[in-house]
Amino acid sequence: MSALRIGLVGLGTVGASVWKNLRTQENLLTPRCGKILRIEKVAEKNRARARQADVPEAQLVDDWRELARDPSLDVVVELIGGTDVAADLIRESLSHGKDVVTANKALLAEQGRELTAFAAERGKRLLFEASVAGGIPLLLALREGLIANEILSLHGIINGTCNYLLSAMTSRALSFQEALREAKELGYAEADETLDVAGHDTAHKAVILSALAYGFWPALCEVHTEGIQNVDPLDLHFAQELGYRLKLLAILRSHPKRGEIEVRVHPTLLRKGHLLSSVRGVFNAVAVRGDVVGETLFYGRGAGGDPTSSAVLADLAFLARGKAVSRELPPSSGRQTALTLRPMAKILSRYYVRFLVEDRPGVLAEIARIFSARNISISSVIQPEGHRGQTVPLIVLLHQSQEADVQEACRIIETLPTVKRPAILLRVEDLEGEEGWSS
Amino acid sequence: MSALRIGLVGLGTVGASVWKNLRTQENLLTPRCGKILRIEKVAEKNRARARQADVPEAQLVDDWRELARDPSLDVVVELIGGTDVAADLIRESLSHGKDVVTANKALLAEQGRELTAFAAERGKRLLFEASVAGGIPLLLALREGLIANEILSLHGIINGTCNYLLSAMTSRALSFQEALREAKELGYAEADETLDVAGHDTAHKAVILSALAYGFWPALCEVHTEGIQNVDPLDLHFAQELGYRLKLLAILRSHPKRGEIEVRVHPTLLRKGHLLSSVRGVFNAVAVRGDVVGETLFYGRGAGGDPTSSAVLADLAFLARGKAVSRELPPSSGRQTALTLRPMAKILSRYYVRFLVEDRPGVLAEIARIFSARNISISSVIQPEGHRGQTVPLIVLLHQSQEADVQEACRIIETLPTVKRPAILLRVEDLEGEEGWSS
Ligand SMILES: NC(=O)c1ccc[n+]([C@@H]2O[C@H](COP(=O)([O-])OP(=O)(O)OC[C@H]3O[C@@H](n4cnc5c(N)ncnc54)[C@H](OP(=O)(O)O)[C@@H]3O)[C@@H](O)[C@H]2O)c1
Ligand SMILES: NC(=O)c1ccc[n+]([C@@H]2O[C@H](COP(=O)([O-])OP(=O)(O)OC[C@H]3O[C@@H](n4cnc5c(N)ncnc54)[C@H](OP(=O)(O)O)[C@@H]3O)[C@@H](O)[C@H]2O)c1
Repeated sequence: MSALRIGLVGLGTVGASVWKNLRTQENLLTPRCGKILRIEKVAEKNRARARQADVPEAQLVDDWRELARDPSLDVVVELIGGTDVAADLIRESLSHGKDVVTANKALLAEQGRELTAFAAERGKRLLFEASVAGGIPLLLALREGLIANEILSLHGIINGTCNYLLSAMTSRALSFQEALREAKELGYAEADETLDVAGHDTAHKAVILSALAYGFWPALCEVHTEGIQNVDPLDLHFAQELGYRLKLLAILRSHPKRGEIEVRVHPTLLRKGHLLSSVRGVFNAVAVRGDVVGETLFYGRGAGGDPTSSAVLADLAFLARGKAVSRELPPSSGRQTALTLRPMAKILSRYYVRFLVEDRPGVLAEIARIFSARNISISSVIQPEGHRGQTVPLIVLLHQSQEADVQEACRIIETLPTVKRPAILLRVEDLEGEEGWSS
Repeated sequence: MSALRIGLVGLGTVGASVWKNLRTQENLLTPRCGKILRIEKVAEKNRARARQADVPEAQLVDDWRELARDPSLDVVVELIGGTDVAADLIRESLSHGKDVVTANKALLAEQGRELTAFAAERGKRLLFEASVAGGIPLLLALREGLIANEILSLHGIINGTCNYLLSAMTSRALSFQEALREAKELGYAEADETLDVAGHDTAHKAVILSALAYGFWPALCEVHTEGIQNVDPLDLHFAQELGYRLKLLAILRSHPKRGEIEVRVHPTLLRKGHLLSSVRGVFNAVAVRGDVVGETLFYGRGAGGDPTSSAVLADLAFLARGKAVSRELPPSSGRQTALTLRPMAKILSRYYVRFLVEDRPGVLAEIARIFSARNISISSVIQPEGHRGQTVPLIVLLHQSQEADVQEACRIIETLPTVKRPAILLRVEDLEGEEGWSS
């Protein structure tokens, strides 16, 4: 099978995750792309990092130029950050006939117009899905999914640090400095927090979003940018009282009739009813309003090695699938035989079960005994008060159990003389990700 | 400029929207695709509908076979619904060398595996972004954006009718029948509601999602499917009490080590903290958990002519852009000169302004006068009580006004002897789409 030959520059947070996940996901990616995604060479200044990431010596070089100029590589992944060297690296790689994947929002905000033009002139691709909103496939949605729409407006929470700080200040009445100290301890804020809290990082991403939505790269210096460093807890308090929450937003809005675009970044009050106002902690969410589709929203982790590498790998997969192929479905023929549908009787779930019972002592104990004989344990009970001898509902919430066991237990319980009707059974799903929400 | 020559079959809710929006969006789509998307012929049994949609007689034919066999067409769009004729139409079109776009989830759930294989054998594409979650680019996200991920689980609210009914039953304590009557009056439920309320439509979409996520088409009859027709308001009440909300979900979960997939549809209790539990009314939302990216969520309108046509047009744009081209950015060269960035001074917004004032009679009146002289009107005021002569915060919320006017008014107000500090100014965004959320 042929391979996409990749040169990776930078083994920091994102680079090391790309290195790791390209291996762990190889069994998925190879059949999905019809090609092997193979990192041939890695350039990293910091040898300690390379060792930590388990990159074999033989694949390691010191100088990124070696990768940019290597005729055997198809694509260079730039994950060093910064703007000067990164720009040289990208231009040099494109000049030598390589496609480039980057997550470098600071560089794109500064030189995105020139760099994308430079790539287009050479018939090469410069892809940067990871530069905004981490693992959320937002640029893809703007580029392809919503292609038939004029983007009327976009409101994005796209800096996790700021959202963490504002969430902590709002929910626990911390001052900005207290919240910042905590965020640094938890690794949610950089040692130098300025880029994030002053709104610059959000402005970088807003510039990129404007390019995606409108083909228009605003000058970064012309994007109105206010950060959250001066947010006073007093205003969070009054905002609450008025029914609002404060979020740092990137706002884009088009005025097609006037040929004008708004691009701005500032702390913004959002009504508590809107779901953007409920996005908590380091999560990102972007509400996009299209003239045909109406309101849409995209939510997920906006930063961190793994989520960001998910987007870098998607760009690499796009290049691997090549100009001729696009995946409509993952290769099913192989898996269709390998996979089976788990029968309902065998699923594991939590359960809500309501019985109608005679209100007399011992009923609950008997029901509990029947469940427990099948290793099903009860997590809560609601037993509304009634009068002895009356029929009353009895609700039990069960810990994770197997469907077949729960069904069997219910059938047996239904034969008890004190149980008056077939049980009502509802399944309960405990989704992860709840930490990202408040309501 | 060359054109993608389209044959459209069916001018119902979705078909008529596709016809309309292909015209209204032409100025966006042509440059973005590098091609004109042109409907050459329309087949519709119902002449009255064709007239209503303003389809010229010359483009109208009675028999879809004419489109399927027309050598001058590149693609056929199937929007007639049903399974028998639609399957014939799709096969016949593919056999005659055309790509096909459809929104027909019932057909795909029944014959998706065969139809996609039929297309692949002929080197043609069968695209169906519109078949699940309407305008939300969810299939695209699974196919491309999250390509590097094993989908660990997917939880989807993907039937707007059921979500409307459960929302109404929960928030207003209606019975199922009452809610259904209301939904029919509002056009949120079909005359025959069975397909929706019995969970079949959700099961159709679950089958398609399984194909996208796992390349695995489960047999529809093997997908455990429970509807909401027997949901008892009593259980909604107890669920609330336990901290849960009831939603009809499609649930997918993979067990890679066992080679098993779960695909099931049933009313499900979700903890109120999770954002899926807050999705209200006819909106759709899908939480997707990938092993690399973590939790993501996609939200928007899952049905209706316009949202659904947004997805149909995206599929057509994909075909138009062709195998050689994929749009990284919308064509910017033309627009970069045509567009300008609106200066901050000229934006319109609502505002929150906090002053620190001396607590004495007449202060508010004076401030209000200065705003009103610039046509800025106040929507609310918070004036915490203090003692005369003390300084107290005074908060005003302003109706939509121009930034420059608000700034100017604040500068003047700050010169008043009773005003003690520069104003704190925060902007307020009123987002649409709030009806889809509760919190
Ligand atoms: N971290 C995230 O969550 C995230 C999310 C989205 C986008 N991004 C973007 O992704 C990029 C990388 O971010 P990161 O967090 O991974 O940064 P990082 O942890 O600082 O990693 C950068 C790595 O590149 C190395 N490097 C610097 N200059 C080099 C050079 N000339 N040649 C070879 N190696 C060089 C650094 O080595 P030294 O340590 O020796 O300098 C470091 O190991 C940035 O553009 C960032 O904005 C990051
Ligand atoms: N409506 C939505 O919101 C939505 C959302 C997602 C997906 N979908 C899917 O999209 C498809 C279309 O839905 P829809 O709501 O637009 O249906 P619809 O309003 O019932 O429209 C179907 C149209 O096709 C016409 N038709 C039927 N058989 C035909 C034939 N043999 N030749 C030519 N025309 C024929 C019908 O004419 P008659 O009236 O004379 O029968 C009708 O005008 C369905 O598969 C549906 O599941 C719909």
